[in-house]
Amino acid sequence: MAKKGITPRGEDYSQWYLDIINQAQLADYAPVRGCMVIRPNGYAIWEAIQRELDRRFKDTGHVNAYFPLFIPESFMKKEAEHVEGFAPECAVVTEGGGSKLEEKLYVRPTSETIMYAMYSKWIKSWRDLPLLINQWANIVRWEMRTRLFLRTLEFLWQEGHTAHATAEEAEEEALMILDLYAEFSENVLALSVVKGPKSDAEKFPGALVTYAIEAMMQDKKALQAGTSHNLSDHFAKVFDVQYQDREEKLQYVHQTSWGVSTRLIGAVIMAHSDDDGLVLPPKVAARQVVIVPIWKSDKEKTAVCVAGSELERDLRKAGIRVYLDDRDQYRPGFKFNQHEVEGVPMRVEIGPKDLEKKSVALKRRDGGDKIFVPMDEAVGKIKEQLDTMQRDMLARSKKFREDNTKDIDGYDAFREFIGSDSGWASSHWCGGADCETKVKDETKATIRVIPFKETDTGKCIICGKDSPKRVIFAKAY
Amino acid sequence: MAKKGITPRGEDYSQWYLDIINQAQLADYAPVRGCMVIRPNGYAIWEAIQRELDRRFKDTGHVNAYFPLFIPESFMKKEAEHVEGFAPECAVVTEGGGSKLEEKLYVRPTSETIMYAMYSKWIKSWRDLPLLINQWANIVRWEMRTRLFLRTLEFLWQEGHTAHATAEEAEEEALMILDLYAEFSENVLALSVVKGPKSDAEKFPGALVTYAIEAMMQDKKALQAGTSHNLSDHFAKVFDVQYQDREEKLQYVHQTSWGVSTRLIGAVIMAHSDDDGLVLPPKVAARQVVIVPIWKSDKEKTAVCVAGSELERDLRKAGIRVYLDDRDQYRPGFKFNQHEVEGVPMRVEIGPKDLEKKSVALKRRDGGDKIFVPMDEAVGKIKEQLDTMQRDMLARSKKFREDNTKDIDGYDAFREFIGSDSGWASSHWCGGADCETKVKDETKATIRVIPFKETDTGKCIICGKDSPKRVIFAKAY
Repeated sequence: MAKKGITPRGEDYSQWYLDIINQAQLADYAPVRGCMVIRPNGYAIWEAIQRELDRRFKDTGHVNAYFPLFIPESFMKKEAEHVEGFAPECAVVTEGGGSKLEEKLYVRPTSETIMYAMYSKWIKSWRDLPLLINQWANIVRWEMRTRLFLRTLEFLWQEGHTAHATAEEAEEEALMILDLYAEFSENVLALSVVKGPKSDAEKFPGALVTYAIEAMMQDKKALQAGTSHNLSDHFAKVFDVQYQDREEKLQYVHQTSWGVSTRLIGAVIMAHSDDDGLVLPPKVAARQVVIVPIWKSDKEKTAVCVAGSELERDLRKAGIRVYLDDRDQYRPGFKFNQHEVEGVPMRVEIGPKDLEKKSVALKRRDGGDKIFVPMDEAVGKIKEQLDTMQRDMLARSKKFREDNTKDIDGYDAFREFIGSDSGWASSHWCGGADCETKVKDETKATIRVIPFKETDTGKCIICGKDSPKRVIFAKAY
Repeated sequence: MAKKGITPRGEDYSQWYLDIINQAQLADYAPVRGCMVIRPNGYAIWEAIQRELDRRFKDTGHVNAYFPLFIPESFMKKEAEHVEGFAPECAVVTEGGGSKLEEKLYVRPTSETIMYAMYSKWIKSWRDLPLLINQWANIVRWEMRTRLFLRTLEFLWQEGHTAHATAEEAEEEALMILDLYAEFSENVLALSVVKGPKSDAEKFPGALVTYAIEAMMQDKKALQAGTSHNLSDHFAKVFDVQYQDREEKLQYVHQTSWGVSTRLIGAVIMAHSDDDGLVLPPKVAARQVVIVPIWKSDKEKTAVCVAGSELERDLRKAGIRVYLDDRDQYRPGFKFNQHEVEGVPMRVEIGPKDLEKKSVALKRRDGGDKIFVPMDEAVGKIKEQLDTMQRDMLARSKKFREDNTKDIDGYDAFREFIGSDSGWASSHWCGGADCETKVKDETKATIRVIPFKETDTGKCIICGKDSPKRVIFAKAY
């Protein structure tokens, strides 16, 4: 029997992931095939992601709006590459108000078409640009094989859609958002990422270029944590989004779109958790600190609960999300276990002996021994420990990715490396689609990202032709 | 030609409402029948509503979660009254991933059925109660006649769904939420409301009792601004939501559900705006204050923009949402007009003469003359004026409702009163469904609410039988 109902990672990584989600009450399968219910503990992680990203979007001049869930079939069909990419995985409404519809409505798999039809109406002049809109919404894609948070029929996301006067401004925006996503992933989610463009085969249907950030999970697979697309004037021409420039000439706008989704919750779970349950970076945790008072007699109870309550108040004043667990019906051991499984970053214990010594015991969820600190220094120490934990988790994520990313030369070595699930291969690639397909067919690895930072030239591991730089090949979620 | 493209209220109230929405860029019809796009200015109002309500929900112990958009047909059909009420107005998905589905999926018109199927799985013991969950989501109802914000095929809302051990606790929760909604409406939206239960004919399909808050619009029609339902153990029996009590006996839970939607944005527009455009209560405005620097020469520009920028910084520090409108391409008159139409609560003007006198000019959007205040007292004065404006708007809303609510006795007088759109009739009603139907058929007025505060008995205006108390009859949105 697995400890706490959690299968060890080393034994079965997929089952471990599902066990964590189940035991920490993060999500549940719904009675609709492939759909999930995001339970309060899981949704709280999404709320933290929303809060942190929304602030960053607004600080960079974006505003939120809301566009319809339904897209008429004729709109979907306007952009050939787009409809080919998305139509096969759509849910389709054919009846409404008790009657058959004249035109089918697609449940949005993404909102380019419906949004740009409106942009065409709203944008008239250079004065209306740039238009910087973001939407928080639910999305439906008819996936056949689903996995909680990572791939479900319905998921939640944000999609930014901007329009600019020039190609340069659109490229700047796409790259600015990529940096924003990377900074957010590292500083909030404690996920170290690699930035760069995707190969043509992996880019968004209809985009000129797709930039992505990729993170490494504990099983050394890659997970795409966010994408930012430079759409050029491709959609503008299809949806006739034009503006009058300062010389009163009509010009097409240049656009970007970008998004992250609830699959980030899956990334946070898979990157940081251990065999005892969920581990959350403090910035993502709904409850950053739990105070557990420990008592035997009623007299002791009053004393430790009063002390706990005072500490709770002081921590809250200091901006820390804290919860005093003074529930009567559970014993301390039960509480310790629950908070551990649910990933509360820090536990504070206050027992009668601690009160005597005027100290409290702190225990970080990401490891290390209990430490004892004087009561009157507790707030400062807790804050410091939370900050350190946030940094340590990012450092571990970075080290793990770097340790498991290897320069691999030669196709035999490559097949051996990928076949044994040894990590990410940083290998030379000529840029050809045939070589990319061959690797995918033979090893299941895909090109995750073409890192900005790589510079050395070499020979393609597949065909031996010249390669401008190394790219990251890996199996991915 | 109407001033600023806005038809005066007195001339055509419906057109005035649409003109405000259009000129203030709050929403737009989408190219899908009956669906709307909520534009950034409109969505910002929804964000204020979400922020204020979400805080109140959390302060009262509720947590957020997310349930699927799709509901299998078999679930919809489990509760007879519920399916009868909702199925005819549903959008139905019959195709997914390119194939015809075996079971139709309804796009949620409300989430009782899908949520309670999960509650049945999650709730085992008295320790799991109360379960206090809220969801922010999009909802689809196939309305034939639509009006922006008030009635559209798709809208946004929050739906709270709670489960309790006893009938008393469920009733307490339903009433607590009603009070929360009323306090929010009055203190945030500046909408004075009347609280009380609905008649049986107007209650939620499947509820024991529906409580509502009703607000009066400027055309004296009623608008339901929020509902809170005590569902008793009705749904619990259908979805088998049971718990073991302390004596280990199985008991059905008692439930509530409650919600407000984006129609509140329509209420805010209709209750407060004037012939010059939108008027927003400060607590709802994305931009509470706009600073407009006025200059002729470049030298003047530098001076007034520096002063404006300093004031902006100080106001922001004081927690006020402020925007410095130093755009080059527009003249002050254009800016004044735009901010007036868009409902920014307070305008601050800084011109060269103001700088000389070390003062600024303040203009409240809800009327009154410009006032001049010393620059070094500006932050305090602006804060004070915003608070006063918020209170004044509520007071006006209350006075308007009270002035236009009349005790009407006798059916002839009633028909005359309702027929001439004179306001809300506070009239006696026996409690009979027949009398209620007769009034609706003959006058289009419905019973909006049975006010808690009414106490005097009398005779039903329709049939003359004994009436326990006066109720509010009105035409409604």
